[in-house]
Amino acid sequence: MTTVYTRPLARLIEQLQRLPGVGPKTAQRLALHILKRPDDEVKALAQALIDAKQQVGLCKVCFHLSAEPVCEICRNPNRDESTICVVADSRDVIALEKTREYQGKYHVLGGVISPMDGIGPDQLHIQQLIRRVSLKDIKEVIMAISPSVEGETTTLYIGQLVKPFTKVTRIAFGLPIGGDLEYADELTLARALEGRRELD
Amino acid sequence: MTTVYTRPLARLIEQLQRLPGVGPKTAQRLALHILKRPDDEVKALAQALIDAKQQVGLCKVCFHLSAEPVCEICRNPNRDESTICVVADSRDVIALEKTREYQGKYHVLGGVISPMDGIGPDQLHIQQLIRRVSLKDIKEVIMAISPSVEGETTTLYIGQLVKPFTKVTRIAFGLPIGGDLEYADELTLARALEGRRELD
Repeated sequence: MTTVYTRPLARLIEQLQRLPGVGPKTAQRLALHILKRPDDEVKALAQALIDAKQQVGLCKVCFHLSAEPVCEICRNPNRDESTICVVADSRDVIALEKTREYQGKYHVLGGVISPMDGIGPDQLHIQQLIRRVSLKDIKEVIMAISPSVEGETTTLYIGQLVKPFTKVTRIAFGLPIGGDLEYADELTLARALEGRRELD
Repeated sequence: MTTVYTRPLARLIEQLQRLPGVGPKTAQRLALHILKRPDDEVKALAQALIDAKQQVGLCKVCFHLSAEPVCEICRNPNRDESTICVVADSRDVIALEKTREYQGKYHVLGGVISPMDGIGPDQLHIQQLIRRVSLKDIKEVIMAISPSVEGETTTLYIGQLVKPFTKVTRIAFGLPIGGDLEYADELTLARALEGRRELD
């Protein structure tokens, strides 16, 4: 049998297929596209991969992705130091930052407690959170973790540890904006009812 | 405004977004995935990009993608040298090779005649096809070009040039296997009727 792809092309397709959501067809399409682009552009992509991997680490205060030892958010003097929003992953920080609503600091756990996957509290940045809360004058810790079984466990576990030091709140769950009540699942509706507020 | 991404991450997302079908959300997802992979894996991807771009050129006989001056298909002595299948793009060679039905050689035009996009016959590898057909003992040239307006023009144009030297055929158009007659468009149905054959 003749191999369908010339070797360096086969290797590129193989590498691209390791990316999430990239199957054989997409990998082939991407690879053939890349072969048609100018040298400079391909080199820029390769360099961006290497640079990002080499230069981006975790902020030593909040564990958000950062190219500096302490991230831009932690260094920003205009942000409220007395509020910490606890999230599972750096992508949650990014999502919250895009709303431009939140002016406090963050703490990235690096996952949620999940005994099934062998992730206990010690694998997450929970100790460091307790340290931050106990050493600084923190007025509020906002738990912003997705409400899965593991997420709930994590929220409750951390809530217990933080409560002795400061107020703990959690983000609201309910009907999404633009969502249709008729199509919402029962758990979401139950949460929306439970979280009802008086009209002003 | 705080930038949402640390700089090397922003650059990687920007580069990934240049890929076809990759929007801001996908680029972010890919970039965050890449940051979590081991160094080796990221380097392997970067190297595969560079290698493929540097090493893969066009076969000087048929213009299919190849890391060697002459591609594997053209070098294969077991393939029928007297049949040439003419396609628009290397991806068409790959698609046909995957069927494992075709045992002849190929000729990749590098596109189709499209005056609207400034692509005339001189921008395609048509001269080289005529040369191959006129110098070697070719028994059949199979036109395998998608039946768009530009594709049809290209098929007819090349057909005229090749006919003095050898037999020219074209692949069949009709109802796709598994396709439902009811949902086929009129042009496809018209072609399917036109291409009807007697039952054996």
